[in-house]
Amino acid sequence: VWEGAAAAETAARASLRPEVFDWIACGSGDELTVAANTSAWHDLRLRPHVLRDVTNVDISCSLLGTVLPMPIAIAPTSRHDLCDPEGEIATARGAAAAGALFAVATGSERTLQEISTAAAGAPRWFQVYMARDRGWTRERVQEAVEVGCSAVVLTADVPVVSRRRSTGAGFVDAGRVRIELDPSVGLDAIAWLGSISGLPVVVKGLLRADDAERCVAAGAAGLIVSNHGGRQLDGAVATARALPAVVAAVGQAAEVYVDGGVRRGTDVLKALALGAKSIFLGRPVLWGLAAGGAPGVEAVLRGFAEELELAMRLAGCTSLRELDSDLLAVV
Amino acid sequence: VWEGAAAAETAARASLRPEVFDWIACGSGDELTVAANTSAWHDLRLRPHVLRDVTNVDISCSLLGTVLPMPIAIAPTSRHDLCDPEGEIATARGAAAAGALFAVATGSERTLQEISTAAAGAPRWFQVYMARDRGWTRERVQEAVEVGCSAVVLTADVPVVSRRRSTGAGFVDAGRVRIELDPSVGLDAIAWLGSISGLPVVVKGLLRADDAERCVAAGAAGLIVSNHGGRQLDGAVATARALPAVVAAVGQAAEVYVDGGVRRGTDVLKALALGAKSIFLGRPVLWGLAAGGAPGVEAVLRGFAEELELAMRLAGCTSLRELDSDLLAVV
Amino acid sequence: VWEGAAAAETAARASLRPEVFDWIACGSGDELTVAANTSAWHDLRLRPHVLRDVTNVDISCSLLGTVLPMPIAIAPTSRHDLCDPEGEIATARGAAAAGALFAVATGSERTLQEISTAAAGAPRWFQVYMARDRGWTRERVQEAVEVGCSAVVLTADVPVVSRRRSTGAGFVDAGRVRIELDPSVGLDAIAWLGSISGLPVVVKGLLRADDAERCVAAGAAGLIVSNHGGRQLDGAVATARALPAVVAAVGQAAEVYVDGGVRRGTDVLKALALGAKSIFLGRPVLWGLAAGGAPGVEAVLRGFAEELELAMRLAGCTSLRELDSDLLAVV
Amino acid sequence: VWEGAAAAETAARASLRPEVFDWIACGSGDELTVAANTSAWHDLRLRPHVLRDVTNVDISCSLLGTVLPMPIAIAPTSRHDLCDPEGEIATARGAAAAGALFAVATGSERTLQEISTAAAGAPRWFQVYMARDRGWTRERVQEAVEVGCSAVVLTADVPVVSRRRSTGAGFVDAGRVRIELDPSVGLDAIAWLGSISGLPVVVKGLLRADDAERCVAAGAAGLIVSNHGGRQLDGAVATARALPAVVAAVGQAAEVYVDGGVRRGTDVLKALALGAKSIFLGRPVLWGLAAGGAPGVEAVLRGFAEELELAMRLAGCTSLRELDSDLLAVV
Repeated sequence: VWEGAAAAETAARASLRPEVFDWIACGSGDELTVAANTSAWHDLRLRPHVLRDVTNVDISCSLLGTVLPMPIAIAPTSRHDLCDPEGEIATARGAAAAGALFAVATGSERTLQEISTAAAGAPRWFQVYMARDRGWTRERVQEAVEVGCSAVVLTADVPVVSRRRSTGAGFVDAGRVRIELDPSVGLDAIAWLGSISGLPVVVKGLLRADDAERCVAAGAAGLIVSNHGGRQLDGAVATARALPAVVAAVGQAAEVYVDGGVRRGTDVLKALALGAKSIFLGRPVLWGLAAGGAPGVEAVLRGFAEELELAMRLAGCTSLRELDSDLLAVV
Repeated sequence: VWEGAAAAETAARASLRPEVFDWIACGSGDELTVAANTSAWHDLRLRPHVLRDVTNVDISCSLLGTVLPMPIAIAPTSRHDLCDPEGEIATARGAAAAGALFAVATGSERTLQEISTAAAGAPRWFQVYMARDRGWTRERVQEAVEVGCSAVVLTADVPVVSRRRSTGAGFVDAGRVRIELDPSVGLDAIAWLGSISGLPVVVKGLLRADDAERCVAAGAAGLIVSNHGGRQLDGAVATARALPAVVAAVGQAAEVYVDGGVRRGTDVLKALALGAKSIFLGRPVLWGLAAGGAPGVEAVLRGFAEELELAMRLAGCTSLRELDSDLLAVV
Repeated sequence: VWEGAAAAETAARASLRPEVFDWIACGSGDELTVAANTSAWHDLRLRPHVLRDVTNVDISCSLLGTVLPMPIAIAPTSRHDLCDPEGEIATARGAAAAGALFAVATGSERTLQEISTAAAGAPRWFQVYMARDRGWTRERVQEAVEVGCSAVVLTADVPVVSRRRSTGAGFVDAGRVRIELDPSVGLDAIAWLGSISGLPVVVKGLLRADDAERCVAAGAAGLIVSNHGGRQLDGAVATARALPAVVAAVGQAAEVYVDGGVRRGTDVLKALALGAKSIFLGRPVLWGLAAGGAPGVEAVLRGFAEELELAMRLAGCTSLRELDSDLLAVV
Repeated sequence: VWEGAAAAETAARASLRPEVFDWIACGSGDELTVAANTSAWHDLRLRPHVLRDVTNVDISCSLLGTVLPMPIAIAPTSRHDLCDPEGEIATARGAAAAGALFAVATGSERTLQEISTAAAGAPRWFQVYMARDRGWTRERVQEAVEVGCSAVVLTADVPVVSRRRSTGAGFVDAGRVRIELDPSVGLDAIAWLGSISGLPVVVKGLLRADDAERCVAAGAAGLIVSNHGGRQLDGAVATARALPAVVAAVGQAAEVYVDGGVRRGTDVLKALALGAKSIFLGRPVLWGLAAGGAPGVEAVLRGFAEELELAMRLAGCTSLRELDSDLLAVV
């Protein structure tokens, strides 16, 4: 029985070493943005419709041309092996079982080949960092193309890694992938990634409308409004607050997604009402993985989908096309 | 001595099994709306008048043509037997003793016939769910007509039941009434209920002005602004926040009532100042029932009425007609 | 050494029976207004001036023609004998020692004659309730005239007594004065009190600009913006929030004062900046009385005066005439 | 490893006598302004840019013509000997090691000569109080000129000392310097200080735009928006709230700095985005001094500089010239 993301968090706390649980939980600085991400969803209030036929609710969506059963995807996060011995293989199997898109991180402990083999044919994107050694990044992208990833996600908010409580913890440093980040990366990386992959490029880590416009002009097909789960610039605006302006600026020209602090199906509903095409889950997926391996990941994804369907019914909405800001009140 | 609804809650906590107390208390999801309902009344501040003759204060009102001694009615809630062995019979006796309107729920554990016999002639409405088997609903409505209910209350915010902490608890499932809810119910249900009953129809569970307009256009004589006590769509706006727009939209064409988080006579005063013709009490009535049976219900109703009268006097108002938003400041 | 009103409160807590301390502290209902009174002063932020000569600061003021050394007066409260064996005699001596105006309450345990004898010639007002027996009120007012009170304060916000935690406590009921309040009192009471006393009439307990205008039109020379320390209509607006509109409406035609939640010299400064001619202290004076008798009352009054002088210097202001809302920012 | 100012505070708490730690921490009155200073920085939210070349970040600045490696300076505070046996000598060495400007206080326990000798050639300002004996102040200023201070800082918000919890504590009273403050000081002090020193004059302790304009008109070259760390007028506006209006009024004619509640590099970034040319640190420097002497001071300054550089990179900014209010959102 799905009892909510908070229950998954509790289960993960029980099964993980404290330092790993904290590594997942922590943000940068004073964790102002971690707190703001969650509370910003809460601050939005819903204005549900009643007396509408909600027998059939359809939460399927199309992301960059791929039809998916739910607008709930897995955000790229690294080192899943710290949550489950199978690492990203388990995550991939859970995602595939639920039919959810999995954005595999460069920092995954399992190789893309292993992950792809574990869940062949499942919808998959590949998240990439721009390394100082562009050849290295090119190789990673080519692997992604070879294993059938359908989009490249460029993380834009990590020109350098921020300071977190867990910075430099030994258990994280020992991972498979070591990247020398290139802090000089500019907008031209978008076209370059498109050209070497032949895939649509999604920029992750935007919070501003003007940046969104520049990215779309530079070739981005999608944007993930994100502050890296509050792990990069502490004090950055909550994603729920940043999302509307980005949608208003580029929502017609590109697909806009959002992550950060999404913990309930009602949060997903609010994100979609603000114009997001999908949300991405970071920590909740790791909690599910830690608590139950692949089935745990599947349970989290299905749990969110069920909560979203329920919220849609209770809001009197039957398809994502009906959702807009009229459903919301800021109190 | 009436010491306020909080004292009744404390007494109920002492007399109920913990799981029943919690079943009454709980909301859906993170209970954001449960909390918002109460705090929204608190956020409204009163601007009392002074040096007016308040010797005689009249809190009587007329709901759909029935004159009542107080604008404080009992909201439909199910399974009163969990609070008192006599169940709704005790509630009905308490309501009749206080002269308050009792909106009996479809999910009452005692039959309408029993309840009516227990307190013959008392003002009574009947709350109905639209079952997939319309014949079943028709029978329930006909019973309501036969026992003299003067209005039918259509619950609009439960196309499906939401998830609460107590979802699926055995002690609730075992009730007398099992309803297969029909999630396809639309506005035409209003006219249908009116046609089979010959009674005015009140729609319960609205939060939007546009929905209110549609319901009134579809034949509703009254509307209860409600979010089901925070037990359906978590994150829905507080009723005190939703009420003004509904009153502005349909207050001339229909009677508007409100429930949710009303815990003091000053909350009632605020609701009336915002344009409600009456408030409905859910949890406080159950607390009174648990704490003292029929006399406990009567005490809660009289306690609220006394608090309202006192608040009226302290606000310099002597009849409900004098109350409007000039009495309020949002701080 | 004056360590602030909070220290006086702590000392009073140590010296009083708990039920008396609580009787002083408590408000009506959920004590929303008690809390709001204090926090509303805190919400106002000061914008001090610098590099001005603040060698000489003058906090003297003139209330209804009486020159006083400080705009800090004693609000009428009853039963001072519960704080000190000498009761209001001690309060009067403390007030006289500080030079502060003492508004003696009808409900004082010592007679006006005793109080006046104890501190002859000190500035003194008399607070009156309108009893059903107007002759009784007339006698009280005539006593006040005879002992030299210079104004009559009509309490307007107690048409009936509200419910508080301590309602009906035996130790309060046993007082000297028993008043049968008249809830029919209207604006004509102002002129009547003026005619039988020949004194200026101050109306205490206003929160609205329209009421203020009506009172001034009816003959009031002064108004105390007050919600009875949060002991009457719970949920009434904080006095700091209500004050500006009253000053704007009648500040040219009458003197406006304020009480409620004033605990620091900076609160006094804020009240004066909002247009009050003086503040009145209720609970802090009782704390001082309980903690130290007449010297305790004097210490509280002098403590507030010193804090106000200090705040004036730190704000770059040397006389009350310089104070206006330019000194304030609402944050 | 720099773990933030909060870690330095914790270390200082462990190494200081409790009364000294509290003397550093405390504010005046109810410490409303102490709390407001910190929370006002938190309330500002950042809107970072992404996909910009942030390889080279330059946080150097020029204050009154002196080029400095960081816009992070040491605010004048007294009695450093209470934190470290070497007192201001250690502070000066730490400041010099980091290259940060040190504004030495009149109330320093070591003489200016000792401090200058300890760190010859380091950037240094001298803070001065106007004593009743102007000759005394003149002597202090002349010493400052002789030892090479490059500006005089006139503290404007202490016409008298406010009341704090630690007021009159013996351990503070015993200091080297005893000043009889002159509460009559006016704007002409600015020109006088300039004339006797031949140095630019910075006025510290302003919160208002009109005062800023008057000070600049009177000859001030720089202004420190400050409320004395919440130790003078309690209830004064937070410096982050006051800063924008001052910058708008005089930012073209003078340099505007700010202190109060700055605890993170992101706070520095916000201050600079609001138009400050530099921030000044008070308590954090004392914490560093207490925790580690001169190296502790250096660590605090370098820590803030590193945090600022990191925040600049994460905000997509490479020089202070790029920073403006477009980077901020008030949520």
